Amino acid sequence: MSLLIRNIKTLVLAEQNPRRLVKGADMAALPLLHDAFLLIENGRIARFGPMPECPERAGQVLDARGRLVFPSWCDSHTHIVYAASREEEFVDRIRGLSYEEIAQRGGGILNSARRLQAAPEDDLFESALRRLHEVIGYGTGAIEIKSGYGLTVESELKMLRVIRRLKAVSPIPIKATFLGAHAVPLEYKERRQAYIDLIVNEMLPQVAAEGLADYCDVFCDKGFFSPAETDQILQAGWRYGLKPKIHANELGYTGGVEAGVANRAISVDHLEYTGDAEIEALKQGDTLPTLLPSCAFFLGIPYSPARKMIDAGLPVVLASDYNPGSSPSGKMSFVVSLACIKMKMLPEEAIHAATLNGARAMELETELGSIAVGKMANVFISAPISSLAVVPYSFGSNLVERVVLQGKVWEPPVRQ
Amino acid sequence: MSLLIRNIKTLVLAEQNPRRLVKGADMAALPLLHDAFLLIENGRIARFGPMPECPERAGQVLDARGRLVFPSWCDSHTHIVYAASREEEFVDRIRGLSYEEIAQRGGGILNSARRLQAAPEDDLFESALRRLHEVIGYGTGAIEIKSGYGLTVESELKMLRVIRRLKAVSPIPIKATFLGAHAVPLEYKERRQAYIDLIVNEMLPQVAAEGLADYCDVFCDKGFFSPAETDQILQAGWRYGLKPKIHANELGYTGGVEAGVANRAISVDHLEYTGDAEIEALKQGDTLPTLLPSCAFFLGIPYSPARKMIDAGLPVVLASDYNPGSSPSGKMSFVVSLACIKMKMLPEEAIHAATLNGARAMELETELGSIAVGKMANVFISAPISSLAVVPYSFGSNLVERVVLQGKVWEPPVRQ
Repeated sequence: MSLLIRNIKTLVLAEQNPRRLVKGADMAALPLLHDAFLLIENGRIARFGPMPECPERAGQVLDARGRLVFPSWCDSHTHIVYAASREEEFVDRIRGLSYEEIAQRGGGILNSARRLQAAPEDDLFESALRRLHEVIGYGTGAIEIKSGYGLTVESELKMLRVIRRLKAVSPIPIKATFLGAHAVPLEYKERRQAYIDLIVNEMLPQVAAEGLADYCDVFCDKGFFSPAETDQILQAGWRYGLKPKIHANELGYTGGVEAGVANRAISVDHLEYTGDAEIEALKQGDTLPTLLPSCAFFLGIPYSPARKMIDAGLPVVLASDYNPGSSPSGKMSFVVSLACIKMKMLPEEAIHAATLNGARAMELETELGSIAVGKMANVFISAPISSLAVVPYSFGSNLVERVVLQGKVWEPPVRQ
Repeated sequence: MSLLIRNIKTLVLAEQNPRRLVKGADMAALPLLHDAFLLIENGRIARFGPMPECPERAGQVLDARGRLVFPSWCDSHTHIVYAASREEEFVDRIRGLSYEEIAQRGGGILNSARRLQAAPEDDLFESALRRLHEVIGYGTGAIEIKSGYGLTVESELKMLRVIRRLKAVSPIPIKATFLGAHAVPLEYKERRQAYIDLIVNEMLPQVAAEGLADYCDVFCDKGFFSPAETDQILQAGWRYGLKPKIHANELGYTGGVEAGVANRAISVDHLEYTGDAEIEALKQGDTLPTLLPSCAFFLGIPYSPARKMIDAGLPVVLASDYNPGSSPSGKMSFVVSLACIKMKMLPEEAIHAATLNGARAMELETELGSIAVGKMANVFISAPISSLAVVPYSFGSNLVERVVLQGKVWEPPVRQ
């Protein structure tokens, strides 16, 4: 089985000389090939090059005249398993309540937890699968999904089993993250350590025994878990082979970034509050800074200082944070728009951050995130556009015309 | 020919007792009907009511179980006839230039004018038609389109003829606005009055003679046209029967709102800079305040103080400002999202502003903008959602599942 895409106006490679991560000033230099072809065989990228070298034939041929071909988005931070949208809290915020005030009243994550605990596993699976198909249609070709709306042994396992079922049917790679430490349940409010013990002594062993997670996450922030509590949980995770990927510095300068680096996290995510100390800590380790601008947009909190991080030489990652409370959207092209419009990233930097660096934040950088021979052929073909900057510029449009997954043109399932 | 939509979860009426405009506190009270049917005959709304009263049969029947039915968006301010996107200026702004600096260097509107002057009329028609189809797919059911990238007699007429051709083939109503006073061309920089004379003595008479415009617009703002210059042009427009709809107070407190009210404009649009004096002026007349939050979002300028206007009892209108420089998006559901997320309008207020009040800003309020017997049946059916607040909340999604125009299900033309 082969697929040949011909007459590509611009092939966005996002990779040159096997490189698995792009940092600092290199992020602005996005490798491109104009007037190109792309040949896919057995689901893998077999060859690409200038049109004069294009093969004569293939099993299936697509003409991409006037169109750009991108490596699929790699979305390394989502919470797409949830029971219900939370638009009523959105209206509460319009009326003047803050996200933290809503959380203190038992809204926010605890609201999602109550609803998820009551929801049948099959319903959770079906709604998450619809969201997965939605974001695939918007060009996402690899995704990470977290638990964290369970907050009991039983419900955290239920969420992770839903993610396992999604993995089994998904046309794109999925990584699962255990986030038992997403919030302290109300009944543990006065005995936080007991909840941490539950995570460490009950949840983690069962998650590990069933092989349900790839990573271990903690919401290390003001009003959630302290750096010392985060240490306890992440070190326990490491004992079960779960690498950390954590939430940090969304609500303040709370030591989360340093806790992530000290615990050798794959990534520290959010980083709305990032100053010189946090940047210095990131420069000392291999932990990736993952920015989630849809959350800042939706909550009206400050955007992460992406420019400052790139100028300091860091390898910035972009992800959607798709979740019902702080980012009810998984559209990665809009994340790229926000990165450019609000965080002043150049289009090339934002695309690197949302593809190759996103793949790295899921340890999929040898498989995905760029156009390179041997990689999995997850790409999308744009509508006819004048240049790649049109992707962030056209912030309201869906410019993904065709999605190709493992070399096959993907068709969205018909919704009843 | 009849179409029956059954089992509608919520029918968003947006109207009760023939009302043609919603002001102030009334904007939050959006009339709804749950578990409803909608019957359309000969392209008009024939009947609606609770499901127990639903007719047995009709020519065509759609089941809208779990879905909401909305009156189509009425987008009263766009510039969708243009020759080329301007993403290179977007990148210039990321690199640090302001919109005004770009304009001063011959970019901005003058850049679009150079390109439009060189573009064949057929190309302009084809690209504008694609944009029209794009926004119809996003739920727009009536639209206003401006000239203003011509800036010569010949090219302004060319733009307006393109709009006339669009009117002839469009499945939705279009209003045309003459905007010769969009910017002062470089060659008139030192003799502004000569350009105003050209508008008044050459452009307006020809526009009127060919019946090419419904309205007359001026960009009354800092660096563009003064209130006194605006007066001259609008008064000349009135002599040809063209009512004013103007751009005002995007870049400063420049007297544009007062100029609009004094000239009995249908609407004054933008209003990023609106204080007590402007609100007082609006309260004294019938001129509608039209807000364009996509522009503030994209340019990073302040959002209009929508809350203050509504609290003062004004009838706020929302429109997209779709154009290649300051708002390259015509997605009205995203405008509604921005109105709620950034301007703190309630979902009900924003929906009123983008439907019935938008229709009023195009003098189409007896025909469109709400579900009322006898009105043109332009509506859209949402995806299954839990409540209408999900529309602004899901800021990245396209929740328009089916578009119905004059009682017929609309199918997007296949793009080659």
